[in-house]
Amino acid sequence: MGQITYVKSASQLICMDGEGGPRTGRGMSRLGIIASGSVVIEDGIIVFAGSDALAEQYLSRRQSEAEIVDARGKVVTPGLVDPHTHAIFAGSRENELELRLQGVKYIDILKRGGGILNTARSTREAAEEELVRQSRLRLDRFLLHGVTTIEAKSGYGLTVQDELKQLRAARALNELHPIDVVPTFMGAHAVPEEYRNNPEGYVDLVVNEMLPAVAEYGLAEYCDVFCEQGVFNTAQSRRILEAAGGLGFKLKLHADEIAEGFGGAELAAELGAVSAEHLLKASAEGVQALAKSGTVAVLLPGTALFLMERPAAARSMIEAGVPVALSTDCNPGSSPTVSMPFILSAACLTMRMTPAEVLTASTINAAYAIGRGEKIGSIEIGKQGDLVLFDADNYRQLPYYYGMNLVHTVIKKGRVVVKGGVLVDG
Amino acid sequence: MGQITYVKSASQLICMDGEGGPRTGRGMSRLGIIASGSVVIEDGIIVFAGSDALAEQYLSRRQSEAEIVDARGKVVTPGLVDPHTHAIFAGSRENELELRLQGVKYIDILKRGGGILNTARSTREAAEEELVRQSRLRLDRFLLHGVTTIEAKSGYGLTVQDELKQLRAARALNELHPIDVVPTFMGAHAVPEEYRNNPEGYVDLVVNEMLPAVAEYGLAEYCDVFCEQGVFNTAQSRRILEAAGGLGFKLKLHADEIAEGFGGAELAAELGAVSAEHLLKASAEGVQALAKSGTVAVLLPGTALFLMERPAAARSMIEAGVPVALSTDCNPGSSPTVSMPFILSAACLTMRMTPAEVLTASTINAAYAIGRGEKIGSIEIGKQGDLVLFDADNYRQLPYYYGMNLVHTVIKKGRVVVKGGVLVDG
Ligand SMILES: [Zn+2]
Ligand SMILES: [Zn+2]
Repeated sequence: MGQITYVKSASQLICMDGEGGPRTGRGMSRLGIIASGSVVIEDGIIVFAGSDALAEQYLSRRQSEAEIVDARGKVVTPGLVDPHTHAIFAGSRENELELRLQGVKYIDILKRGGGILNTARSTREAAEEELVRQSRLRLDRFLLHGVTTIEAKSGYGLTVQDELKQLRAARALNELHPIDVVPTFMGAHAVPEEYRNNPEGYVDLVVNEMLPAVAEYGLAEYCDVFCEQGVFNTAQSRRILEAAGGLGFKLKLHADEIAEGFGGAELAAELGAVSAEHLLKASAEGVQALAKSGTVAVLLPGTALFLMERPAAARSMIEAGVPVALSTDCNPGSSPTVSMPFILSAACLTMRMTPAEVLTASTINAAYAIGRGEKIGSIEIGKQGDLVLFDADNYRQLPYYYGMNLVHTVIKKGRVVVKGGVLVDG
Repeated sequence: MGQITYVKSASQLICMDGEGGPRTGRGMSRLGIIASGSVVIEDGIIVFAGSDALAEQYLSRRQSEAEIVDARGKVVTPGLVDPHTHAIFAGSRENELELRLQGVKYIDILKRGGGILNTARSTREAAEEELVRQSRLRLDRFLLHGVTTIEAKSGYGLTVQDELKQLRAARALNELHPIDVVPTFMGAHAVPEEYRNNPEGYVDLVVNEMLPAVAEYGLAEYCDVFCEQGVFNTAQSRRILEAAGGLGFKLKLHADEIAEGFGGAELAAELGAVSAEHLLKASAEGVQALAKSGTVAVLLPGTALFLMERPAAARSMIEAGVPVALSTDCNPGSSPTVSMPFILSAACLTMRMTPAEVLTASTINAAYAIGRGEKIGSIEIGKQGDLVLFDADNYRQLPYYYGMNLVHTVIKKGRVVVKGGVLVDG
């Protein structure tokens, strides 16, 4: 008999069950809602999800004592999944907000040696333990906002040793923190200052030294590239991703964030990337290509708001059949937040996604965006026991109460890790 | 010897001290920052604010035991003031968000008998105790977001008895909750269904019955009107506000939110209103008039975001010399949030106010917008001991960490009411 957690009598249980793949089109609106629903988790795995009455029957046949979590008056959803973060870094960059409010563009701050290069300096300077310490506080805050799994990218090291250091920090956090951390190598996040006049030399370094080292130590599942005017062009992006694919990495791409017609979405689709991110300026052809390749579009409406740009065309993507996921993009320059709940509101208010679609996009579709669709992202028998209890009457209230964090309880692998909106010790 | 609270060693103490009136222009950027600063509160009143060293000297001359609040690593600001809420109501309206995402306009939902009229039905049906109970939970959440004083409007009763009931609920909350509640009578919030074909008859009711009754029972300090196309025109608004002025009410006006060229700002200035609210469509002449009359512009960037409209032209108003304040507009239809911290971020990101300006706008200027500038809104000797401790290194991080609530500790009249992000019992 195992350790049993019994989440009892939710007002609404949002199951997100049963499609066997990322959701598209109208499928993004099917939540699988059970009114007055309960969940039983045994040894970290969901063994029952259904009506309160059936839960009582199910448990009456078991011998074990169950830890009961009272979910009356709560909406229960799968643990939120954040499929795109740069959460492993040192320092902060609040001064750049003031510059941008005066009209300086994000890309110009980077060109002047600020932006990503600023955080690269502080991250290089930080010892591995310090990097873990600062990032751990960030992960605590993610957990308080209902996030139970994140993807985390390197890309603030930009040397072989510092990229490895950042990925080791991600691995350490995956082990010591309740949140699962899915690691992505993104050495091609910016051209570092020492290669300013030799960007091809830096691409050589990424391909010839970084990628093989990351593969050798098994430090990342994915490889990502910032494919953008003034950063890495499509030829460089292709070269890096093809090398990564050859080494067994799955692929992601920062695509079409800033420049029009750069072809990032098309490239992501052509290379069979699992996800393409940002897509503010994706072309209609690029969107069609993503739909055809089944690449998940990871949209970042908080980043658009924080950079004071128009958000991605989520409605066109959903209509075209692209599976859409949502993310904070957590990073110190273009999106300092860890609040997935706010991202749900922002997706409704700035991209006109519906409350049902944003829930799908931050659970099951987000899980597929990081290759975890079979394990997390829905409340189904056999899946990991990751749940969130929100102080809300129904799921529509989650984006409605914008700017507020309604998370009451978070359960990770069957263990209560947040209760009454605060972290549970130990 | 009184009860002493000693807030010790803040990283940054944001005093907002010393101008004797609402701030305008460059004055909105002067925060009066003390690095390593402390505050001493005695019997609810600030008796010292200055450097840590001077605080130790000051306290060494006193006999009383002080309750020490450790503010190391925290930014300390005056308690946030929300000068425009409709926080006393029953029910919620998350379904309207879905309608609006499909393209239905807010004003058309109202015309169909939804919107304000929907909340009027649930508020009329609720007993006074139930209205207090639901609103009290909302006030708890305000407090958790660092808000220590709010203005609260009636306007969901729309009958003599129900308007009085709403204002009595506001008075009860002012007494039983730590938050100070400044009451505003706003019977002219919408024309109720029973007067649909006789709006002038409703204005008669407001002027001849409601206003005298509210005055008689002393239930409100301010009178406000929703001056808008399809709601109350400028002639009706003028008639109501002139009657209110004659009875001793101070004046506010919901002005120029939706229709262009409606003349609301001009009317507010002409009548010497203390504040004019929304102002999304205020004319250049209207803004000049507000600057001349010294009327505080209360801007509501969350509402603009939630209604998917362009926000007010805060920069033009600041340049014109209008004192600007910020507010949540907390209400179930156009702005369900209680998060003043999010409103600070929204004001930066959607209206290009600076981090310093948004702090001024949510403390001292917000206090002047509700006639409390002499008592709250800054950390100065003689003012009420209302403070917030934020988990932040410096004040620029407050709007930077958008969508997150960094409030750690809230002190109201010298008493710790929120600690570690949760309410203190009792
Ligand atoms: Zn990114
Ligand atoms: Zn209002």
